[in-house]
Amino acid sequence: EVEITPRGRMHLDAGMYKDDVTEIGNGFNVRRGRLGMQGNLSPDWRFVIEYDFAEGGDASAADVNIRTKLAGGNVTIGHQRVPFSLNTLTSSNSITFMERSSGSTVITPDRKLGVRFDKTFGNLTSESMLFGRTMNTEGDAGKDDSMGLAQRIIYHPKVDDVQYHFAGAFVYQDMGDYNTLRLRDRPELRIDSGVRLIDTGTLEGINSINRFGLEAAFINGAWSAEAEAMTLNTSSTVEDVSFSGYHFQLSYVLTGESRSYKNGLFSGVKPSKESGAIEVAARYSVTDLNDGTVFGGEQKNLTLGVNYYLLNNLRFMGNIVFSDIDTPSGVTEEPIGFGVRVQYHF
Amino acid sequence: EVEITPRGRMHLDAGMYKDDVTEIGNGFNVRRGRLGMQGNLSPDWRFVIEYDFAEGGDASAADVNIRTKLAGGNVTIGHQRVPFSLNTLTSSNSITFMERSSGSTVITPDRKLGVRFDKTFGNLTSESMLFGRTMNTEGDAGKDDSMGLAQRIIYHPKVDDVQYHFAGAFVYQDMGDYNTLRLRDRPELRIDSGVRLIDTGTLEGINSINRFGLEAAFINGAWSAEAEAMTLNTSSTVEDVSFSGYHFQLSYVLTGESRSYKNGLFSGVKPSKESGAIEVAARYSVTDLNDGTVFGGEQKNLTLGVNYYLLNNLRFMGNIVFSDIDTPSGVTEEPIGFGVRVQYHF
Amino acid sequence: EVEITPRGRMHLDAGMYKDDVTEIGNGFNVRRGRLGMQGNLSPDWRFVIEYDFAEGGDASAADVNIRTKLAGGNVTIGHQRVPFSLNTLTSSNSITFMERSSGSTVITPDRKLGVRFDKTFGNLTSESMLFGRTMNTEGDAGKDDSMGLAQRIIYHPKVDDVQYHFAGAFVYQDMGDYNTLRLRDRPELRIDSGVRLIDTGTLEGINSINRFGLEAAFINGAWSAEAEAMTLNTSSTVEDVSFSGYHFQLSYVLTGESRSYKNGLFSGVKPSKESGAIEVAARYSVTDLNDGTVFGGEQKNLTLGVNYYLLNNLRFMGNIVFSDIDTPSGVTEEPIGFGVRVQYHF
Repeated sequence: EVEITPRGRMHLDAGMYKDDVTEIGNGFNVRRGRLGMQGNLSPDWRFVIEYDFAEGGDASAADVNIRTKLAGGNVTIGHQRVPFSLNTLTSSNSITFMERSSGSTVITPDRKLGVRFDKTFGNLTSESMLFGRTMNTEGDAGKDDSMGLAQRIIYHPKVDDVQYHFAGAFVYQDMGDYNTLRLRDRPELRIDSGVRLIDTGTLEGINSINRFGLEAAFINGAWSAEAEAMTLNTSSTVEDVSFSGYHFQLSYVLTGESRSYKNGLFSGVKPSKESGAIEVAARYSVTDLNDGTVFGGEQKNLTLGVNYYLLNNLRFMGNIVFSDIDTPSGVTEEPIGFGVRVQYHF
Repeated sequence: EVEITPRGRMHLDAGMYKDDVTEIGNGFNVRRGRLGMQGNLSPDWRFVIEYDFAEGGDASAADVNIRTKLAGGNVTIGHQRVPFSLNTLTSSNSITFMERSSGSTVITPDRKLGVRFDKTFGNLTSESMLFGRTMNTEGDAGKDDSMGLAQRIIYHPKVDDVQYHFAGAFVYQDMGDYNTLRLRDRPELRIDSGVRLIDTGTLEGINSINRFGLEAAFINGAWSAEAEAMTLNTSSTVEDVSFSGYHFQLSYVLTGESRSYKNGLFSGVKPSKESGAIEVAARYSVTDLNDGTVFGGEQKNLTLGVNYYLLNNLRFMGNIVFSDIDTPSGVTEEPIGFGVRVQYHF
Repeated sequence: EVEITPRGRMHLDAGMYKDDVTEIGNGFNVRRGRLGMQGNLSPDWRFVIEYDFAEGGDASAADVNIRTKLAGGNVTIGHQRVPFSLNTLTSSNSITFMERSSGSTVITPDRKLGVRFDKTFGNLTSESMLFGRTMNTEGDAGKDDSMGLAQRIIYHPKVDDVQYHFAGAFVYQDMGDYNTLRLRDRPELRIDSGVRLIDTGTLEGINSINRFGLEAAFINGAWSAEAEAMTLNTSSTVEDVSFSGYHFQLSYVLTGESRSYKNGLFSGVKPSKESGAIEVAARYSVTDLNDGTVFGGEQKNLTLGVNYYLLNNLRFMGNIVFSDIDTPSGVTEEPIGFGVRVQYHF
């Protein structure tokens, strides 16, 4: 009666950079190398346990949770994504570019331990979560975990075969006894995962964080577009600061397929022919980590990408990222990154 | 011909403490997050490989072994539990409270690499093991591993539908070139895994260790009871000391099911109705880490628990732990812990 | 349509040493404890993801790649073995002795991220690879990965039921921004993985490395023999040095089975009877890490082994290793190692 299916993914990157001031390393990177299991304990209870072993040998927990139906919706208990940011909530198997937008990467809470409840009422979907810490973090003796609440509301009407998506989200996070915050990011490519050109450094005295996000997107046949803006505001004993990010992206599937979408969530392109599907896309993103006395830098990236979907679960990607970065040390850098990825999942 | 079945488990805890002197952190904890495989290489050879990735990203080996029949019994080669302590030998999926008794936790050798032979003669079961080190420990260059021998004998008659269990066990462990010992424990709840209020500190000059354990238990329909007492005695170049622990527990399944039992081993409650089974239980445990010049402290815990078995492999637990602890620093602390768990396995 | 099969292996060793000058630890060692998945994304695309969790809790990547047919051959993308050294390329499930020859261990590049193309033309097989770094290594910010090219050519005629194998291989590796090299090894047994009696120490200023290898082998019914010689030459800003290793081995299957072989690759003995197969074998190996001003030592080992193949995937091994080692500190040591292994894979 218990059904179990293995799951996993490999995302293998190779790439190089046209450096500006800071040297950025060229070579290979296993961006994701995951193994896990999913299945049903009974028709009503669905579980997943998945870990990533790509980064430095340590297990990094992906989804580790259990889900059941409740009051016409789904309740999920365990390690899972906090409902905030369309780009973050899109599976890494289905994101349009090799990396998520820099804003989504630094500002969203990503995965946390907690209880989430999702319910769809016609064209409206609500996602709510009570959450604690991320797995494998915050283990100091005697300290209370950070805790938070998230609410995302999506309006997703389909009009004349055009899928629209409008969403707003809010996250309140009490930092518990973990009162520091550090936001930093790579230039939207992670061949060299050690070089981050924007970085607030460690901010002390953070009591709580508020995050706000707005999303708009549509899918019209082979065309799709997505726009997000989000801010993070600290309540601090030192200085209240606010950081923000936004991005726009446009993609077009040359072979005519549409991106998939359901109740507030994008997934990938499924090729309709044996020869596969080809998608071209462009994104512009801005991430601003400067506020008050904090000079974490500002990063603007233009990314051009091409995706070749050979199978539903096998994709080849190519990205060029043109960056324009004001670094915390007051220098302007304009590196260009070139990356390719082969990815599969099962 | 080779049959392989995935296995795994998630034990997710949330909880808080009413602190006394020492602050203990509140929040979430993934107590176990395991993935593995088990199966048959042939009808005669059964294998299992399972790791836990919940704690801090490192893989922690659970059972990694192979088993076959020999001389009417089972011989198991590899990483497995040393036959000592009913509470330790009960699977974490089936233990009555969220944590094993403190005595079982600090005094038993738990899993080691070695060869174990189990055989049942009617109402008598014998478990013997020659063992070395725990996986992922004791890797210093040039040092001999610790080695040991364990023997457990269980008498388990069933009289008038009442299952009785009486057992005695002995473990001799030569410390090889690893001549230190440190016993310490948390207050029978592991939301904050960093706070241990009893702790012998690191004892030097340990040549060998003897452990003795006595067990008694019964299952009478919906009622079951279990009692254990165990001691650990060091043979040391510094000072021979002796530590001990014992616990009593009583559980009652409100919905009428019985705990399962076979040849010296308890397993869990299988709900007979779709609405699940409910068990209430109480335990009193004492762990004494004071002897000679070592003042590791003494911990007395009263735990009240309720378990809701929704499926054979899905359980919700709630525990309250009232502690009375003489800490090594000479303070008496009486924290109260509140914990809940959702757990599944496959 | 996607087919997934779990895979894994346990190699459990126990052993002891008759020490000479340096103390070497006795005890147990889990040499390999792997879990993974393999399968087909489609009839044309085959994947594998496997990690080893035996060593110290960190995940160590084994094969993590994807393969398809191309131009009458196979192209494999991802983490995999560089085509160099018959002994290294033989799966650890099928190697004749508990450890590979010391030369193969220190001189071959083992697994790297990259793209490999294999093609067989009648009795000739060509294996080519463009490779970068090993997974979980070389992660320093701002540094370019090492990159290399490998080519192995195997001539493998079968004449009068005798399988012959002759091969030559060459590897060029540009060190990128990782300009150090350290070669060191244990005495062909890894019960105590911390004691290495030959060791060049860390050599600085390495720009590139060339490796050359020659292989000869045959299988004649129950007899098989294998010989390898290889060198590693550095191009350095400090001092160009050259290290080398070679080994001969002979094995005989008492029960009459043959070792398996296909297109340049040995695999194991499959027992033809229920009582299993027994193989005896001997190997002599020399590894020379002395050159120029580098005195890394020289290691000569004679290994005698017996293998009992109970099933296709279950094997028991016993090895005695007589070593004669000139250590870097100028001492001659002659330890003797005794090891046994139980291994299974699925």
